[in-house]
Amino acid sequence: MASTLTLMVFLLLSLYTFSLVSSHQYHPLDPLTPSEFTLVRTIVKKSYPSPNHNLTFQYIGLDEPDKPTILSWLSNPASKPPPRRASVITRVEKQSHEIMVEFSTRSIVYDNVYLGHGYPLLTLDEQSAATELPETYEPFIKSIEKRGLKLSEVVCSTYTTGWYGEAKSKRVLKLQCYYKEGTVNFYMRPVEGILLVVDLDEMKIVEYYDRSIAPVPKAEGTDYQASTQKPPFGPHPNGATFFQPDGPGFKIDGHIISWANWIFHLGFDVRVGPIISTASIYDVEKQTYRQVLYRGYISELFVPYMDPTEDWYYKTFFDCGEFGFGQSAVSLQPFADCPANAVFRDAYYAGEDGVPVKISNALCIFERYAGNIMWRHTELGILDEIREVRPEVSLVVRMVAVVGNYDYIIDWEFKPSGTIKLGVGLTGILEVKGVIYTHTDEIREDVHGTLLANNTIGIYHDHFLTYYLDLDVDGEANSFVKNNLEMIRTTNQSSPRKSYWTVVSETAKTEGEARIQLGLNQPELIVVNPNKKTKVGNNVGYRLIPGSVAHPLLSYDDYPQIRGAFTNKNVWVTPYNKSEKWAGGAFVDQSRGEDTLAVWSLRNREIENKDIVLWYTIGFHHVPSQDEFPVMPTLSGGFELRPNNFFESNPVLKTRAPSVVAGPNCTTQG
Amino acid sequence: MASTLTLMVFLLLSLYTFSLVSSHQYHPLDPLTPSEFTLVRTIVKKSYPSPNHNLTFQYIGLDEPDKPTILSWLSNPASKPPPRRASVITRVEKQSHEIMVEFSTRSIVYDNVYLGHGYPLLTLDEQSAATELPETYEPFIKSIEKRGLKLSEVVCSTYTTGWYGEAKSKRVLKLQCYYKEGTVNFYMRPVEGILLVVDLDEMKIVEYYDRSIAPVPKAEGTDYQASTQKPPFGPHPNGATFFQPDGPGFKIDGHIISWANWIFHLGFDVRVGPIISTASIYDVEKQTYRQVLYRGYISELFVPYMDPTEDWYYKTFFDCGEFGFGQSAVSLQPFADCPANAVFRDAYYAGEDGVPVKISNALCIFERYAGNIMWRHTELGILDEIREVRPEVSLVVRMVAVVGNYDYIIDWEFKPSGTIKLGVGLTGILEVKGVIYTHTDEIREDVHGTLLANNTIGIYHDHFLTYYLDLDVDGEANSFVKNNLEMIRTTNQSSPRKSYWTVVSETAKTEGEARIQLGLNQPELIVVNPNKKTKVGNNVGYRLIPGSVAHPLLSYDDYPQIRGAFTNKNVWVTPYNKSEKWAGGAFVDQSRGEDTLAVWSLRNREIENKDIVLWYTIGFHHVPSQDEFPVMPTLSGGFELRPNNFFESNPVLKTRAPSVVAGPNCTTQG
Repeated sequence: MASTLTLMVFLLLSLYTFSLVSSHQYHPLDPLTPSEFTLVRTIVKKSYPSPNHNLTFQYIGLDEPDKPTILSWLSNPASKPPPRRASVITRVEKQSHEIMVEFSTRSIVYDNVYLGHGYPLLTLDEQSAATELPETYEPFIKSIEKRGLKLSEVVCSTYTTGWYGEAKSKRVLKLQCYYKEGTVNFYMRPVEGILLVVDLDEMKIVEYYDRSIAPVPKAEGTDYQASTQKPPFGPHPNGATFFQPDGPGFKIDGHIISWANWIFHLGFDVRVGPIISTASIYDVEKQTYRQVLYRGYISELFVPYMDPTEDWYYKTFFDCGEFGFGQSAVSLQPFADCPANAVFRDAYYAGEDGVPVKISNALCIFERYAGNIMWRHTELGILDEIREVRPEVSLVVRMVAVVGNYDYIIDWEFKPSGTIKLGVGLTGILEVKGVIYTHTDEIREDVHGTLLANNTIGIYHDHFLTYYLDLDVDGEANSFVKNNLEMIRTTNQSSPRKSYWTVVSETAKTEGEARIQLGLNQPELIVVNPNKKTKVGNNVGYRLIPGSVAHPLLSYDDYPQIRGAFTNKNVWVTPYNKSEKWAGGAFVDQSRGEDTLAVWSLRNREIENKDIVLWYTIGFHHVPSQDEFPVMPTLSGGFELRPNNFFESNPVLKTRAPSVVAGPNCTTQG
Repeated sequence: MASTLTLMVFLLLSLYTFSLVSSHQYHPLDPLTPSEFTLVRTIVKKSYPSPNHNLTFQYIGLDEPDKPTILSWLSNPASKPPPRRASVITRVEKQSHEIMVEFSTRSIVYDNVYLGHGYPLLTLDEQSAATELPETYEPFIKSIEKRGLKLSEVVCSTYTTGWYGEAKSKRVLKLQCYYKEGTVNFYMRPVEGILLVVDLDEMKIVEYYDRSIAPVPKAEGTDYQASTQKPPFGPHPNGATFFQPDGPGFKIDGHIISWANWIFHLGFDVRVGPIISTASIYDVEKQTYRQVLYRGYISELFVPYMDPTEDWYYKTFFDCGEFGFGQSAVSLQPFADCPANAVFRDAYYAGEDGVPVKISNALCIFERYAGNIMWRHTELGILDEIREVRPEVSLVVRMVAVVGNYDYIIDWEFKPSGTIKLGVGLTGILEVKGVIYTHTDEIREDVHGTLLANNTIGIYHDHFLTYYLDLDVDGEANSFVKNNLEMIRTTNQSSPRKSYWTVVSETAKTEGEARIQLGLNQPELIVVNPNKKTKVGNNVGYRLIPGSVAHPLLSYDDYPQIRGAFTNKNVWVTPYNKSEKWAGGAFVDQSRGEDTLAVWSLRNREIENKDIVLWYTIGFHHVPSQDEFPVMPTLSGGFELRPNNFFESNPVLKTRAPSVVAGPNCTTQG
C-alpha cells in the first residue's frame, strides 16, 4: 500500500505540476529565473556597499532543497513548496565567499569565507578580460614582433593551471596565444613558446615567458566554414523533412516534460548543464508512475593532456568545475544540431556582475525516429507466418557544450521500454602544438601526439565524463548488486558438458565493495530495490550497461590524477549526501584533491538498502588522427540504464506501432 | 602511380558495373540467380540418375573466384569475367558430397565425398519434415496423453545436437516440443521431459525419452500479436513521415550500391546472409575511389546455453553453420522493420530439392537521418560567433535473421566520414524451460536462469557474432598494428608532472602476435597499409573500435568451446586464404573443432605486409530479465571501423549540409 501511495504521488505530481505552472508557481527543482538572479545580485551587493569592494559572482545556482524535503513535498504537492534559496560563490578582496540567499525573506542566510584549497568556477567575463591583457604588454608585443607576426592577428586563450605540489597558490590562469590570420580556426595556428600567467584577482600579467620558437602552422586547409570552402566539395546529402501530422508526442509544462510513459523534470545549472530529476515511468499493469532516477547530470569532466613539457604539462582540465559545462552550452541550430521536429529551450546563468545571461536554444527536445526496431518477431514454418514489429521512437534531450576548442554533444534518450540511454559525442577542434616537423621521418623524440599536418601535432589526451546518477528504483532505499558470471565445472559425469556459467550475486554492503574497475569478465551491475519484488520474487532493478571503458593512465600519485582521483574507478556508489554533488569537489580550480568522490568513498559508509547514488565514468583515450583535422567527425559513445526485472513483463508489449504516414505527399495510409 | 591506377579501377568498376547490369551481365561476386540455382539442380541431378538416390541439396552458393582472380578482373573490368561456378554440398546415401559446378560448361568440376567429422547446413525442409514425425509416433502420443495435453496443440522444434566426445556419430537432430494452445508464442509453453532424436538420413525417430514432467507454463500473457492485446495499452507514438523531395541519395545497379562517397557490392549467401564486397570510398582530394573492405560478413554466430542438465546440455548452437543465417532471413516489413524511405531487395537460396526459394524484402537499404551531428564547432568570445554544424546522414543496409525464437537485426551503416558501423540488435523470444517453481523463494538449486513467470525459467546464454573483415586498406598488402598506450614516469624533475601516457606501436608479424583478448588497457587496433603514407608520413589505416566485449565462460576443454574455439580471442588476424571463410569450419553440425579459426591460427603464418583478414567477435552474456518476457525489447550493440590517418584531413570538411526542408507542409525552405 505504502508503495502504491508513493507511486500515486508521481501521477499527482505530473498533473499537479502542470497546474502549478499555469498558476506561475514553481517546482522546487526549477533552475533560477532571470528575476531570481537579479534578486540575488541585489541582495548580495547590498551587503557589500563600499565601492572599493570588487565583488564578482563566480557561481549562482539553485540551492536545491535536501532530498527528504523534496520527497515530503512530492508526497503532498498541495503543500507549500520548501523555501527557495540560491547558493552563491563570490570573490571579494581575494577571498572566496560561500553565500546562501533566501528569496522569501530576501536575506543572506550565511556568508562564509572559504579557507580551503582551490578556487571557484572561472567566469567568461574574467577570462575574456585576461585575454585582452597581452596586446598592451610590452614584452609580449616584442615577442610577437620577434616572430614577425602581426599583433592584430594574435588572439589568446585561457587555460587553468592545475596544481603541481605548490605550497602556496594565487588565483591565476595561463594564456597561450594563436594566430588567426587567414582562418577562423586559430586553434590550428598556435604561437608556441610564449606563456603568460594572469592574476585574476589583480587582473594583470604576473609572469611572462618566451622560451622557444616554433613555426606557426599555416592557415591553409584549417578553416571549417562552409563559406570559405573551395571545390571539389564532398558529397551533398539529399534534403529531407520529417513530418508528424498529429504533432509531437511530448508535452512541456514549465520544466516538466512528459512523453509516452515517461515524465521528468529538466533543469539546468551553469556548472553541470542539464539536470534530469524525478524521472518516472508509467507502469501500464500497475496503472501508476514508478520512480527511476531522482537526479542525474554530468558531475565532472576530466581532460588531461599527455605532454609533460614546459608549456604544456599543466593542461589537465576539469570542464565542469573550472569552466562550467552549463556556462559552455551554446545555442543549438535548428535543422542541424537538432532535427526538424525539435523543440528548443533557453537557459540562464548569472554573469560575473550577477546580471542574468540568456543562452537561446541551449537545450533541444525531440522524438527520434531513427529507423530502429523496438522489438520484433517473425514466426515461420511451425505456424503460419506471424510477423509483429514495433518500430522504435525515443525522446532525446540534447545540449552541446563547447569548452574552448572541443564540442561535447550530450544526449539523454528515453525509451518506452524503460531504457535511458546517455549519449556522448566528441567533436570540434583538436588541441594542437606547433613544431618544426613536417614529416614523421624527421621525428626522433616523443612528440606526445600525432603529426596532423605540417608543424602540427595533435596532442594525446583523455576524456573522462563522470555521471551522477541518483537512481531511486521504485523508491529511495536501494542496494547495489554485482552479478558475477562464474564458470562452474561439472563433476562426476553429471553432464556431458564439462562447464557452464551461472550468476553469483553479491550485494555491496559498503562503499568499498562498490568500487568497480571494469574490464575482463565484468559483473552485471544492478541497482535494486531490496524491498520490492516482482510477483515471482525477483528484486526490481535497473542495470548499468557500461559504454566505452577507459582507465586513467597517469600514476595515482601524480598531481592531476590526485585531483581527478574520481576516475580511478569506473563505478562508485555512495550514500546520498546533499553536499556530495561534484566528483572533483566544490572548488576545483587548483584543487588539491581533498574533496573528491575518491576521498568521500574512503569513509566506507554503508550502502545496503540505503538511498544511494551511482557514479559512472565513461572514458575515452584519444590518439588524434589526420582524419580529425582541422575539425573532428563526431566520435560517439554512451551507456544505458536498462530495466532489470523492474517490470513484471515487457512494458512495451502492448505498445501500438505509430500510424503509418507515407511520403512524399504526406498523406496518411492508415 | 600503381596505387592511383588501382584506385582508378574502382571508379571504372562503378561505371562499368552499371553498364554490365544494363546489359544483363554479372559482377563476378553476384549471388547465384534463380536460373543458376535451377541449372545447378539440373546438372547435379543428371549425375545421379537412379531414382534410388535420395539426393538432397544442403548448400548451394557462389564459389567466389579466388581473390587474385577478382582483383585482376577489377584491374581490367572490360576483360572477360572469371568463369562462374557454384559450390554445392549434397547428401547422397548418407554421405556428404562437396561438388563444384561450372556454369559455362554445364559440368561438374569435381564431386568429392567428405570424410571428415561434422555435417552440412540443415535445410528447412528436413527440419520441418522432422517436426512432423512425433504426431504419429505412439510413445510420443502416450506421453502427451499422460500429461493431459491435446496432441493437436503440440508443436515441435528442431535443435542441433552438438558433439560431446562421441567416437561415432550419425546425422541426427533433437526435437523438443511446445504447447500452442491459447498463444502463438509456443516457445513460452515448453513441454519438458520429452526428447526425441531424429535420424535425418533415415528421417525417422531413432531415440525417444520421456524422463520427467514439469508443468506447462500458462498461455496467459505470452501472446505478442497486436490483435490479441487487451487494454490498457502502452503508449502510442505519434505517426510520422519522412520525405525527401529529391528522392533517395543512393543508386542501386544490380548489386552495386553507390551513395555519397561510398560504393560497394551487396551479396547474399544462404549460410552467412548479407556480404559486403569491394567497399571503396571516394577521396575528394585525391579525386579517386580508395579501397577499404574487400569482403565482410558474419562468419559464425555461437549461442551456447548454460544449462548442463539431461534435456538441455546440448543446446550450443552455431546459427550460421548449422541453421544458415541467410536461410533464416525474414521478409522485412515496410514502415516497421525499415523506415518509410527504405528500398527493399529480395534474396534467393536453393531448397533441399535444389529449387530456388525467394525471400521477398530480405534486405533493405535506407538513408538514416537520426538527428545526429556529423561534426560541429561553435566559436564564441575570442572571435565573433561562428557556428558550423553538419548534420549526419548515413546509409544503412539491414537484414533480420530469425533463428527459431531469436531475432537478430544486422546493420551495415556507412558514414560519409569513412566510418563503417556494424550494428547488432538482439530481440525476439527467449528460450525458456518449464519448471515447478512459481516464486524464487521456492528455488533451492541452480536453475540456470531467471524465473520470468510462473513455471518459466529464461536460461542463461551467450551470443558471439564473429565477423569476417577482409580489409584492404588502400590496397591488399596490409599490416596489423597494436598501438599500446603506456604510462611513462617522468624522471629527475624534467617536468612538474610525474607521468603521462604515450603510444608504443607494435606490428604483429605472425598470427600468434595478433590474437587479442580485449579488456583492461586494451591497445588501439589498426589495420594499416605499410606501403602507403600520408603526406606527413603516417601510415594510412582503419581502426577497429570494439563494441560489447564478452569472453567465453566455458572451459577451453569443454566440447562446445572446442567447437567454438574461434571465440577464445576477441580478435584474430589471418593471411587471406580462400578456404578460410567460416570461423567454425565448413561442416559445423556435430563438428569436433578440427576446422576452426583457432586451429588455422596455430599455423602462426606471417601476416606483416600481407593480404590479411581481421576477425572480430562481438559478444553478449545474456542473463534474461522479466522485462524481456514474453518478447524482448531490442538490446543493441555494435562496433566501428573508423579511418585512422586514412585521409590527409577530415573527408567531410567540405560536405555541405542537406538543404533544409521543413514540415509540416513538406515545402522547401532553402
